[in-house]
Amino acid sequence: MSAPPFNKIAIIGLGLIGSSIAHAARRENLAGRIVGYDASADVRGRARTIGFAHLVADDIAACVEDADLVILCAPVGAYKSIAAAAAPHLKPGAILSDVGSVKGAVIRDVGPLVPPGVHFIPAHPIAGTEFSGPEAGFATLFDGRWAILTPLPGADAEAVGRLKAFWQGLGSQVDVMDAAHHDLVLAITSHLPHLIAYNIVGTAHDLEAVTEGEVIKYSASGFRDFTRIAASDPTMWRDVFLNNREAVLEVLGRFNEDLSILQRAVREGDGQTLFDTFSRTRAIRRAIIEMGQETPAPNFGRDFKK
Amino acid sequence: MSAPPFNKIAIIGLGLIGSSIAHAARRENLAGRIVGYDASADVRGRARTIGFAHLVADDIAACVEDADLVILCAPVGAYKSIAAAAAPHLKPGAILSDVGSVKGAVIRDVGPLVPPGVHFIPAHPIAGTEFSGPEAGFATLFDGRWAILTPLPGADAEAVGRLKAFWQGLGSQVDVMDAAHHDLVLAITSHLPHLIAYNIVGTAHDLEAVTEGEVIKYSASGFRDFTRIAASDPTMWRDVFLNNREAVLEVLGRFNEDLSILQRAVREGDGQTLFDTFSRTRAIRRAIIEMGQETPAPNFGRDFKK
Repeated sequence: MSAPPFNKIAIIGLGLIGSSIAHAARRENLAGRIVGYDASADVRGRARTIGFAHLVADDIAACVEDADLVILCAPVGAYKSIAAAAAPHLKPGAILSDVGSVKGAVIRDVGPLVPPGVHFIPAHPIAGTEFSGPEAGFATLFDGRWAILTPLPGADAEAVGRLKAFWQGLGSQVDVMDAAHHDLVLAITSHLPHLIAYNIVGTAHDLEAVTEGEVIKYSASGFRDFTRIAASDPTMWRDVFLNNREAVLEVLGRFNEDLSILQRAVREGDGQTLFDTFSRTRAIRRAIIEMGQETPAPNFGRDFKK
Repeated sequence: MSAPPFNKIAIIGLGLIGSSIAHAARRENLAGRIVGYDASADVRGRARTIGFAHLVADDIAACVEDADLVILCAPVGAYKSIAAAAAPHLKPGAILSDVGSVKGAVIRDVGPLVPPGVHFIPAHPIAGTEFSGPEAGFATLFDGRWAILTPLPGADAEAVGRLKAFWQGLGSQVDVMDAAHHDLVLAITSHLPHLIAYNIVGTAHDLEAVTEGEVIKYSASGFRDFTRIAASDPTMWRDVFLNNREAVLEVLGRFNEDLSILQRAVREGDGQTLFDTFSRTRAIRRAIIEMGQETPAPNFGRDFKK
């Protein structure tokens, strides 16, 4: 067995993504040693019990010291204080990366705190589930998914290459783009869908003429598909929306314009507009399936039987 | 083996739902004979090849004559002309039912055409997949799902009981309610989710700054969950929105109000409102899972590996 590409990896934040990175990195022997840290003592204890890290440190300094690769896996609103605590202890030549769902704000918050000689390369794996916490992680989470790196202009090509190889080692395919484009792409593929899903679940909850029991019983008619992403971690998603405001408002504006057109078509009984809109959306699902990003099985292949 | 509860069942419209009823009724021996009809000669031919019906008739009269139970399984916009063609051939004492996603409009369109002595009992199984056509049907589609009957005031209790037992035989749990309430409940649990899903897929499609390839590649971040119901049959859904206008506009108005509040919270950086909204939606998913209407597996239990 060849030597792992990193001697020590530090993972700060031991939820779904942090724990999955640890599981996958161990599976692929990508690190001589994985040291984790989480702001919550409870989470640190649970992570120790599960054992996906070689060590769970009780402070950031101990977690990051001597690490070749440090990955921030906390909600992005916490990055600034984490980076400030970690910075004095980062090894020269280390790669500092993250997994945040927004990239412009991460560069704004973390960039100024990065010591000279440390390679700051933001990243975002496009993978997840609706579950949170250290128990939610698993080694195959990134298999076949995409990870996006958003290196800053002038980033060290060799360090970018090492981080790219790391994510490929975790099972991902890797793309590189600039942070602003990332934030717009994710606004439409991820942030807006989450906002809409949270919203419709809330609307259903508040509708006084329909009971919650009815919403639950008849949810197989469409509603339940929205409840999965609306069950995602509230802190993480609050931070996403606080940190990608412009792009989210831009795509939300488009969404609202398009919805007004459908609303008018419903009001006026304009069947042709409805039919045309409903007809052009099948192709995109077919393409997602062909790209290996979705199952072709009906109803997501859910097992209906308990 | 005891005699089946119906001598002859006629199924008009041989798509996903019609063919699934045939499969499930055969599995449970609910009919001595199942005769199908579809307006499309191509669909009739494919249905004959599959063989879920004992006979596929070439006209509505032959399909419904002598049937004890006639079920309309076409898009609701076609019901009026189907009912007009079927009416002269319906057997006295027969039950005329349907599976349409709206009920008030069905009563409006079909009710006046029902001959005396025929029991008209509208129904709606809360089940489906994103696939259409006679090949899409399968015998377990209704297992554990709900079916709603909306009998008119004064409906024959014995006939309602027989239809209820039929749907239970297909595997469903059965509720009875009035048509107006059905249409409001389904507007929030089904019609609005479909409108929103179709809309966001359209918005993503039209966004010129983000390529369709990017939307597809990064869809695992949330977007792909919406593409399933946005791949549903366009004709069926056009007819739903043309025939449940008031209830859809009512819940869409609520949705828009709620979305305005979230939009403002994003604009103003109001993290508390975002967090509070995102925190109260997990419970409803948990309840749906506990009611057996959803899988507890992460990501709907999708198999990520091809």
